[in-house]
Amino acid sequence: MFPPSKQNSIDVDDYDHFHDECGVFGVFDHPEAANLTYLGLYAQQHRGQESAGIVSTDGHSFYTHRGMGLVADIFQKSDIKTLRGHHSIGHVRYSTSGESGLRNCQPFSYEYAHGGIAMCHNGNIVNAPELRKQLEKMGSIFQSTSDTEVLIHLVARSRASSMKERLAGAVSKLTGGFSLLVLAEKRLVGLRDRHGIRPLVLGKLDGSWVLASETCAFDLVGAAYVRDVEPGEMVVIDENGLESLHPFASVKPKFCVFEYVYFARPDSTLEGVNVYEARYQIGVELARESAVDADLVIPVPDSGVPPAMGFAEEAGIPFQMGLIRNHYVGRTFIEPKQSIRNFGVKLKLNPNRGLIAGKRVILVDDSIVRGTTSRKIVEMVRAAGASEIHMRISSPPTRHSCFYGVDTPDAAELMANKMDLESMRKAIGADSLAFVSFEGMYRAVGKPRGLHCDACFSGDYPVPVEKQRSPQLSLLHIHSRK
Amino acid sequence: MFPPSKQNSIDVDDYDHFHDECGVFGVFDHPEAANLTYLGLYAQQHRGQESAGIVSTDGHSFYTHRGMGLVADIFQKSDIKTLRGHHSIGHVRYSTSGESGLRNCQPFSYEYAHGGIAMCHNGNIVNAPELRKQLEKMGSIFQSTSDTEVLIHLVARSRASSMKERLAGAVSKLTGGFSLLVLAEKRLVGLRDRHGIRPLVLGKLDGSWVLASETCAFDLVGAAYVRDVEPGEMVVIDENGLESLHPFASVKPKFCVFEYVYFARPDSTLEGVNVYEARYQIGVELARESAVDADLVIPVPDSGVPPAMGFAEEAGIPFQMGLIRNHYVGRTFIEPKQSIRNFGVKLKLNPNRGLIAGKRVILVDDSIVRGTTSRKIVEMVRAAGASEIHMRISSPPTRHSCFYGVDTPDAAELMANKMDLESMRKAIGADSLAFVSFEGMYRAVGKPRGLHCDACFSGDYPVPVEKQRSPQLSLLHIHSRK
Amino acid sequence: MFPPSKQNSIDVDDYDHFHDECGVFGVFDHPEAANLTYLGLYAQQHRGQESAGIVSTDGHSFYTHRGMGLVADIFQKSDIKTLRGHHSIGHVRYSTSGESGLRNCQPFSYEYAHGGIAMCHNGNIVNAPELRKQLEKMGSIFQSTSDTEVLIHLVARSRASSMKERLAGAVSKLTGGFSLLVLAEKRLVGLRDRHGIRPLVLGKLDGSWVLASETCAFDLVGAAYVRDVEPGEMVVIDENGLESLHPFASVKPKFCVFEYVYFARPDSTLEGVNVYEARYQIGVELARESAVDADLVIPVPDSGVPPAMGFAEEAGIPFQMGLIRNHYVGRTFIEPKQSIRNFGVKLKLNPNRGLIAGKRVILVDDSIVRGTTSRKIVEMVRAAGASEIHMRISSPPTRHSCFYGVDTPDAAELMANKMDLESMRKAIGADSLAFVSFEGMYRAVGKPRGLHCDACFSGDYPVPVEKQRSPQLSLLHIHSRK
Amino acid sequence: MFPPSKQNSIDVDDYDHFHDECGVFGVFDHPEAANLTYLGLYAQQHRGQESAGIVSTDGHSFYTHRGMGLVADIFQKSDIKTLRGHHSIGHVRYSTSGESGLRNCQPFSYEYAHGGIAMCHNGNIVNAPELRKQLEKMGSIFQSTSDTEVLIHLVARSRASSMKERLAGAVSKLTGGFSLLVLAEKRLVGLRDRHGIRPLVLGKLDGSWVLASETCAFDLVGAAYVRDVEPGEMVVIDENGLESLHPFASVKPKFCVFEYVYFARPDSTLEGVNVYEARYQIGVELARESAVDADLVIPVPDSGVPPAMGFAEEAGIPFQMGLIRNHYVGRTFIEPKQSIRNFGVKLKLNPNRGLIAGKRVILVDDSIVRGTTSRKIVEMVRAAGASEIHMRISSPPTRHSCFYGVDTPDAAELMANKMDLESMRKAIGADSLAFVSFEGMYRAVGKPRGLHCDACFSGDYPVPVEKQRSPQLSLLHIHSRK
Repeated sequence: MFPPSKQNSIDVDDYDHFHDECGVFGVFDHPEAANLTYLGLYAQQHRGQESAGIVSTDGHSFYTHRGMGLVADIFQKSDIKTLRGHHSIGHVRYSTSGESGLRNCQPFSYEYAHGGIAMCHNGNIVNAPELRKQLEKMGSIFQSTSDTEVLIHLVARSRASSMKERLAGAVSKLTGGFSLLVLAEKRLVGLRDRHGIRPLVLGKLDGSWVLASETCAFDLVGAAYVRDVEPGEMVVIDENGLESLHPFASVKPKFCVFEYVYFARPDSTLEGVNVYEARYQIGVELARESAVDADLVIPVPDSGVPPAMGFAEEAGIPFQMGLIRNHYVGRTFIEPKQSIRNFGVKLKLNPNRGLIAGKRVILVDDSIVRGTTSRKIVEMVRAAGASEIHMRISSPPTRHSCFYGVDTPDAAELMANKMDLESMRKAIGADSLAFVSFEGMYRAVGKPRGLHCDACFSGDYPVPVEKQRSPQLSLLHIHSRK
Repeated sequence: MFPPSKQNSIDVDDYDHFHDECGVFGVFDHPEAANLTYLGLYAQQHRGQESAGIVSTDGHSFYTHRGMGLVADIFQKSDIKTLRGHHSIGHVRYSTSGESGLRNCQPFSYEYAHGGIAMCHNGNIVNAPELRKQLEKMGSIFQSTSDTEVLIHLVARSRASSMKERLAGAVSKLTGGFSLLVLAEKRLVGLRDRHGIRPLVLGKLDGSWVLASETCAFDLVGAAYVRDVEPGEMVVIDENGLESLHPFASVKPKFCVFEYVYFARPDSTLEGVNVYEARYQIGVELARESAVDADLVIPVPDSGVPPAMGFAEEAGIPFQMGLIRNHYVGRTFIEPKQSIRNFGVKLKLNPNRGLIAGKRVILVDDSIVRGTTSRKIVEMVRAAGASEIHMRISSPPTRHSCFYGVDTPDAAELMANKMDLESMRKAIGADSLAFVSFEGMYRAVGKPRGLHCDACFSGDYPVPVEKQRSPQLSLLHIHSRK
Repeated sequence: MFPPSKQNSIDVDDYDHFHDECGVFGVFDHPEAANLTYLGLYAQQHRGQESAGIVSTDGHSFYTHRGMGLVADIFQKSDIKTLRGHHSIGHVRYSTSGESGLRNCQPFSYEYAHGGIAMCHNGNIVNAPELRKQLEKMGSIFQSTSDTEVLIHLVARSRASSMKERLAGAVSKLTGGFSLLVLAEKRLVGLRDRHGIRPLVLGKLDGSWVLASETCAFDLVGAAYVRDVEPGEMVVIDENGLESLHPFASVKPKFCVFEYVYFARPDSTLEGVNVYEARYQIGVELARESAVDADLVIPVPDSGVPPAMGFAEEAGIPFQMGLIRNHYVGRTFIEPKQSIRNFGVKLKLNPNRGLIAGKRVILVDDSIVRGTTSRKIVEMVRAAGASEIHMRISSPPTRHSCFYGVDTPDAAELMANKMDLESMRKAIGADSLAFVSFEGMYRAVGKPRGLHCDACFSGDYPVPVEKQRSPQLSLLHIHSRK
Repeated sequence: MFPPSKQNSIDVDDYDHFHDECGVFGVFDHPEAANLTYLGLYAQQHRGQESAGIVSTDGHSFYTHRGMGLVADIFQKSDIKTLRGHHSIGHVRYSTSGESGLRNCQPFSYEYAHGGIAMCHNGNIVNAPELRKQLEKMGSIFQSTSDTEVLIHLVARSRASSMKERLAGAVSKLTGGFSLLVLAEKRLVGLRDRHGIRPLVLGKLDGSWVLASETCAFDLVGAAYVRDVEPGEMVVIDENGLESLHPFASVKPKFCVFEYVYFARPDSTLEGVNVYEARYQIGVELARESAVDADLVIPVPDSGVPPAMGFAEEAGIPFQMGLIRNHYVGRTFIEPKQSIRNFGVKLKLNPNRGLIAGKRVILVDDSIVRGTTSRKIVEMVRAAGASEIHMRISSPPTRHSCFYGVDTPDAAELMANKMDLESMRKAIGADSLAFVSFEGMYRAVGKPRGLHCDACFSGDYPVPVEKQRSPQLSLLHIHSRK
């Protein structure tokens, strides 16, 4: 029903997909600040499964608890109790393991000349390496590889007299796609980059302001959705209420369209659009664009389910759950020495032979990345007896890497970057293959083309990336045991 | 798509459901015996999530590895390596925690006069307490509360000269519903109780025999399904091949019908019937029996999905995923002090408001146990804006406890045991409520009534249970730290 | 000051020594029964460092907590709370790792026809393998390799009507050296084998009876020492007080003399003799028997300290701590690839060069087992500049294995079994070597020869051991993960 | 024989003593750099038991492994393997728990404009808080509360062109007592503060230079002691060999005299003096200064042992181990509800009644801090039957706090700060009490008074401390779970 979990794909190298990005949650002036943040992260677990953290403040001290793993494992009741105070921010993240991972685990908290401060963000600061080099020249030292550490150095070196100015000044030097939460002793700030590439929503709970990446976090804690934070907007929440600032030069909004296709939970609402409905409508568009005669429409669970339903409805072909997902896919498993065909995919998905045998099947998936998984699924479904397999994809071909917070492979590894449609079809072994068109996708979402970032499909990057930024290598390799 | 995991429901007291039962897997004469058993358990994880174990033998010594938790967490590569030999059996189980749990964790291995022996079973030996009392009078001592320990004492005290006779003699004293795997130095035995209440299937892999509770285990390891082990059959596998014995008096078969409704994975085949199709057809029957005018059919995921699809198809009403399941539901979570309505259910399911608001909704679930969860789901869906809610259940009312391996509450706690249909409807707050009829259920499964155990619905117990067997209390309370 | 800990020697294969044996503690009718037992085990930690356990009873149920490791790590406050009731027994033990170890970890608790029962013992039942074979023929099954499991089977099969008779009857079939604690619902029994090979002392605390292996346990909990339990005595403690029974045929007492030399804590009192003083006096006797001109007397810590002091005093030679012990020797350490001379010994002991250089040194140690450690110590002390090294041992040569609870190597591995004195001296590289005589040892202890077991030195086994009992191998290899 | 371990005293609030300080080890250009560092830390475990870390470099990248706990627990073989390269530094430390502790756990590694750098130190930078405030004003941000972070900021902001100059310039701004190891890609630096308050020794192993806090580390790895690093000296080791620099203004040396009394291992050599002998001689001096008629001299183990031996020898009174130490004192223990007299001390020490009863006893201990432990020991020894108790202390009265790396209580809590000798005697309940004189102590050490820091006894602080520096409070409270 929603994204195949990162947890599932990490150790299954057969199963390539996008890595999820991050999720944030913040609350100001609520007696259960940390507990609500915990639940807000819990509801956004699909946005990052490898580390999580919460920082709270009682208006004087800052309390941090962070760890590697899932939210429910990292935080025990006793941990929540140590997170004192009425203001809190939290973060879930895709990350690496070890202390090195823990070091990069957000939110970060620091002391500087004006007191304590904590930060976390979802997305990517494109010019962080250049800024870091400049800062090091000025005598700054770095302990993590996180972009956030660059930002906090900029804030700490600012001569401006108010925190708002220091923060706005520092952020104005950044380029990229990011949504940011900043917690000071008596202030919570939420901020989206000028293009609004990553999401950030504002809500209200018992009279207190809350911020989250997705509205599904509001649903769990019982908060009411108020509005999206606007691209380039900085909302400053303190005891006097909420102040909305637009300190940056205005540019065209470029919200990430892939949030509709894959990232967001289907029960979330983005820019006023229900994600489930958008996905369902993409399936409808796909059926209109690339109909084919068949006996069954079968989704690749979970994000393929709504478009497959829309496709089936529009095409008048029965929809069936022909691929059963194993919910217990763990981090590690042991591969037998003897080869089991399509083993990596089989651990997660099992075709329901009874349904499939002898049938002409339309498979609906959300995207094709390297193509290896698609090939294995097609092979597995054919081995289950399908007489024809027609692959339909609920996004345009993924031809380019993302530099704004989504962990995609190098463009050179993307199947659609290297092959034309017919070659792709042959490579994955399907009888036919079709992707939804840009037009179909935007029609389904109900938004005109041009107001979203679709660089991974189109190559139109809203923020220039001078050269392909390689993964930032640190000289420091750090592990710990406790 | 298949049963809400035990893992999910254990700490969520709001969310009442049946506890899953057990699963077994065995392989004889394969160089990767332990590894295949590991995968066979992995594929059957839905049948028991709290402990697992494997015993292997190299024809002389027995190697055991067991633990509390999920299969993927209990077994590391190094553990599998310690499980030497070409013969192996394994078990997944619903169990309690601590050493007490570990003690009861199967398979058990023992030494007795004829060497080593290991056993595991799925199900329940109804007369175990009486047999235990008799054995204690004869000087037997007990270290666990497992039924298996009773059986092994019977085997050890047998004067018969062959293992087959010792085992058949011991089993003939047992009543209940159980499928059993026994591993001796050079022999693997699979056995179903005379009524065949619990499943056991036979397959072949690379020329070696394999046994499992469900065919989905065969799919993962690439084994071919051969046939179901018959009720009362004992298959003895050794270097001479497979021998089929029927050492017990013949009785009417009584396979558990609830495996179709809830337990088995939808991609498994039971008695030649595909589980997914059976569930889908139950939905069709349900629509015929209790049609109602509505805008949407919405399943309670996951086991409500196939019947909801069948219902929607038959009724000509759109099917939509209106309840989104959080896949990251962990063992523990922290409840906020401030009340969040329907919090326990909300952690797992979130209604998709965009779809539901203003709609007349048919909710399809697999069963109603205590009724508390159903009430909360109805309340939550109504709060999401549904104008009418019609609850449809893909099994007859659950009025009786199971004594053959399914952990149901006392009959007195079952909502259908205490209330008539209209009272139930009111209690859960639905606008209408209907259960599938016995006739509809059996028609959907494609089997005549009378050949299955449906005691939980009908009270017709195939094996007499003199009085309600209470949970067997041990005098011994054991914990450990390692 | 007391025995080099097992913890230290286990992973240091360079450092050969006796493995410690076990310790027990029991208390009847005290509101803090489990807590006192915990402390009693804590004070006897030197008798066994690899597993520990406590069983308590409230007169109805039995509560067990056991684990691998040190007492302070195994028991947390919350664990002690679960050990309900006013009666309790506990055990520390040398044992193997894994669940296999946990299985053999005492006390054991069982249910049998007469209710619950728990047992633990210090020592060895010599005829356990034969009894086990007989029991298996009669249909008994075994899950551990512990001698205690044999005893409990004998008790369970007894037809006698009282627990006292059942226990006495079962014990009368056993041969060996063992002190036993048995806990029933309303009764605590302490029992020593007929020869009284292993120690067991009786004390009183706040009006409640307590039992322990050594008096140092009484010191910590503040109990008063009353007397030693006599060889062959069975003390039965219940609500009517203490009853002393002598159900077994009387034989000559044979208390283990090695408890004086090495095992017991120096602050304990055995048979009315202070252990520290006995050791000191052995040093005095040794000086009289084998004086040598030298500059310094240096102990091999810790059990060499009192005899070295006695030797120095008698010989009029200065006593100095010339070998410094590292208190932090852990379970594991990492050996460098490049060879460091005498590395294994060096991790534990470092010679104090400043003291030793150019000096004629008398080294006093408690025993020589395989001789490898002695050789390394001599080499290390010589490398530190000693001009002469005279080795003096505070026990006679160890020529035979122990079959009554002390884990000694096979006789064939004992240096004194294979070599004469001069060969030993050469092998360890000392300038002279002498052991205390039997006469000197018994004079120091203040007891006539003939009333103690000194089989490890003399080969006079009080209980016949038909053939060297090899370590009992089980067919079952069991591990677990929790 | 050497300091009562920190491990022992931490959870035993009854047992007050100084907290140990830190230890360092470094090696340059050795193929087993990390392994040797591990062993060097292992041998110096007595200097810090709560965290440890190693940083190595291969001339390009830096590899760090750190953790809370004992060296042998923190580093596994696989961890050592990850610490690549031929240069390495390591650190053991007294520290707090949690990630907060881990954050402060040394060595620290950073990236700055000139590459990577790692540092660790033993001691305290007195003006760190002022420097930190200045740095924050200039835009520095802080993540730990460690003094080292101040130093690295100073280094990073230096405009000097060579690392030697940057480091010397930065250190010249520091006041306090500290020995420092700095590791750059191709260089190892060892440095002592101008007064040489904390120790640092230089050795050679297989042609490679090694640095350590104490010579006992050299003994274990087989390195030869070369010389002490001089006060104010900076030794720079690179591929060209060792360069000795004296970049700071020369002042009077002030090595910590308490290293002789308590901190250092007795088998170490400081300033050419064997620690064991110094302690023994202090006992001799003490006997001359404050002789008393008695039957026995008994040490409070372990650091009381050598002075007690010296006292006994000089006074001609028998020396006996009248207090037996429990080697298994763990981190936690459970106190019984019923009061056991002197429980906290009893867990560690048990008087040997047989020796003590009816005797006039001289107890020798190393120091009196708050006085609570001394009072309990006296009480316990008296309860064991001593007829007179004369307490002799092998250091002058401790009247002042240390600000150079030893964690002492506030002066106000020190017994000798509040009371005169007679009041102290009464308070601890001894029949007489005497401390060694300054003259006696220095005579024993063999050094003239005036060249050591004895501020804890005399109040003469070599480095001015403007006001009592309170424990540095951070706004940040950080925990983590992995």
